[in-house]
Amino acid sequence: MSTLKQRIRLLREDAAAMKLDAAIVTSLPNVRYLCGFTGSNGILLVTARQATLFTDPRYTIQARTETAGSGVRVSIAKGSLEVALPPRLAKMSRIGFENSRVPYRTWEHLHRTLPLGATLQPLNAVIEERRMVKSDEEIAAIRASVNVNSQAFAAALTRFRAGMTETDFAAEIEYQMRLLGAEKPAFETIVAFRANSALPHARPGGARIDGNGLLLVDMGTFRGGYASDMTRCVHLGKAGAKTRNLYKAVLESQLAGVNAVAPGKLAGDVDKAARDVLRKHGLDKAFIHSTGHGLGLEIHEAPRLGRGDGTFLRPGMAITIEPGAYMEGTGGVRIEDTVLVTPTGVEILTPTTKELVIL
Amino acid sequence: MSTLKQRIRLLREDAAAMKLDAAIVTSLPNVRYLCGFTGSNGILLVTARQATLFTDPRYTIQARTETAGSGVRVSIAKGSLEVALPPRLAKMSRIGFENSRVPYRTWEHLHRTLPLGATLQPLNAVIEERRMVKSDEEIAAIRASVNVNSQAFAAALTRFRAGMTETDFAAEIEYQMRLLGAEKPAFETIVAFRANSALPHARPGGARIDGNGLLLVDMGTFRGGYASDMTRCVHLGKAGAKTRNLYKAVLESQLAGVNAVAPGKLAGDVDKAARDVLRKHGLDKAFIHSTGHGLGLEIHEAPRLGRGDGTFLRPGMAITIEPGAYMEGTGGVRIEDTVLVTPTGVEILTPTTKELVIL
Repeated sequence: MSTLKQRIRLLREDAAAMKLDAAIVTSLPNVRYLCGFTGSNGILLVTARQATLFTDPRYTIQARTETAGSGVRVSIAKGSLEVALPPRLAKMSRIGFENSRVPYRTWEHLHRTLPLGATLQPLNAVIEERRMVKSDEEIAAIRASVNVNSQAFAAALTRFRAGMTETDFAAEIEYQMRLLGAEKPAFETIVAFRANSALPHARPGGARIDGNGLLLVDMGTFRGGYASDMTRCVHLGKAGAKTRNLYKAVLESQLAGVNAVAPGKLAGDVDKAARDVLRKHGLDKAFIHSTGHGLGLEIHEAPRLGRGDGTFLRPGMAITIEPGAYMEGTGGVRIEDTVLVTPTGVEILTPTTKELVIL
Repeated sequence: MSTLKQRIRLLREDAAAMKLDAAIVTSLPNVRYLCGFTGSNGILLVTARQATLFTDPRYTIQARTETAGSGVRVSIAKGSLEVALPPRLAKMSRIGFENSRVPYRTWEHLHRTLPLGATLQPLNAVIEERRMVKSDEEIAAIRASVNVNSQAFAAALTRFRAGMTETDFAAEIEYQMRLLGAEKPAFETIVAFRANSALPHARPGGARIDGNGLLLVDMGTFRGGYASDMTRCVHLGKAGAKTRNLYKAVLESQLAGVNAVAPGKLAGDVDKAARDVLRKHGLDKAFIHSTGHGLGLEIHEAPRLGRGDGTFLRPGMAITIEPGAYMEGTGGVRIEDTVLVTPTGVEILTPTTKELVIL
């Protein structure tokens, strides 16, 4: 059975367990996960007997090619896809929908136009929960994405010239990603020099990277549809004792986070392991985000590795471990790997060194 | 009054006309439009007397800087932003929410936790309708984005070498965008050679651009937060009569679309003008999408220039005009400009030639 057929079969099982007659999948990453379609407009309807992808005429050829082997039929709708759905729902009574993703207005439209006797029922995160554990093919895709990302970082570093702006260096990084086969950056690449590194989601700007100072780079790619995510700090010139100590503390925290990863552990325990180290160094208040997140077809997926998160880690989960400490007006350090939960513990996928490289 | 203050004032007026006591703005482009905040997590609450931006600790510094001058207060929430809202809604009875954007689950959460007596009312497209007509600053930003986009195309063409893959050329285009000051591509750049150009949303692949054939490039940038969008075809080697005729027909259609743009015209009439020309050439069935769309803080905004669309064009609207004709297995042509509706007619913003350039 093809991977796609199996995913649809699992959705049918989940739907049956929830006593649903059908599931309407409207979010594009979930549509892609289930039937392979990568276009920008598609709804997948899965019933006990059939699976149908509704899309528009721009995607006629692409939809047929991409869903080949999934057992999904392609139906080309002329107008709005939601309008094509209700006639296919005759004799159904409980129909699942993606309550955490569907805009209220789409729900309202479906609710109003459903056949008599049919009701919409929340699917909650059933698909996202299946997606947390990656298949071997998905792990291979994430590994390839992680490698391209690290290679792009290395290639960009060899092209670094003092005096470049943050924006220029971000451009160079993204260009290298693309040349190495990535489809696109997984998010806006962060290149933050000196005090800018204190903004966890800094946007690269016109600041020149020159003289002495800390440079933070947070970068990710999509390659073959799958995400990677890495943060590294490098230092221009010799780093002062304060910076080296901050870096050492964050690295210790990151390693503690990585080492806390194992099947059966809670996501929240990994966060606690990383956070405890920063607390020991008096830096807990400077760590203002969670320790990591799952990634795959999306850059942010379940689980979230935050305070008290009760998700059990399972082999095949791909997650980031990325503690940081930020000093307003001075600078910040974050160190991030993409790691894999294995049957026996953890594998760090990111091959880039975590030594503080002096540029 | 600052632009941001004025936008919030207009939202208050719209809300008052709908007898709303408050409006909850959850979609990030609308949040940015109203208060300047560009982070990835923010909700804006606008009441008759106050406007408050809720965000998380990662954005403390950024939120204060970006909303300066908007009159908006920043409130840093520790957990989920939706949880921070209800306590602020005491004594309100009708509260607007973005029904076309809010996920059903967020609606449900708000609905459940609202103070007694409060109800959620659809805002529909009130903010998006205000956004259709751009201010002078916004027009300047779109103009700059369009220019960067065209310059990037020209720069990439000078670096084109026969034998490059579609992916490599797309990488080159996006690199040039970045070097010219764009934040990022506005969408995945389309570089489609020969038969691939028949897929309106083709993704660049490993196909080598070599020998004789048609090359379609659809590219856009975000610069200063504002989008641009352009499609051009170039030809490697001499184009055959069939290709030249197809190109001429699409160009005639595109010019007819542009010339139909004027204040007071209907969006659907512009679509009809472009479509009629392709029909005259027997190509109406090969034109499988609408003629264009608005753009601004998002790459796709209202109005949609599709069949029968009843939106009146008004001065200050920035829209694309992009008819195309696609022959499965052979190739396709699309020509697209970003244009501005002016008080007297139309201004083509895109400076790139529409001659079929022979490479």
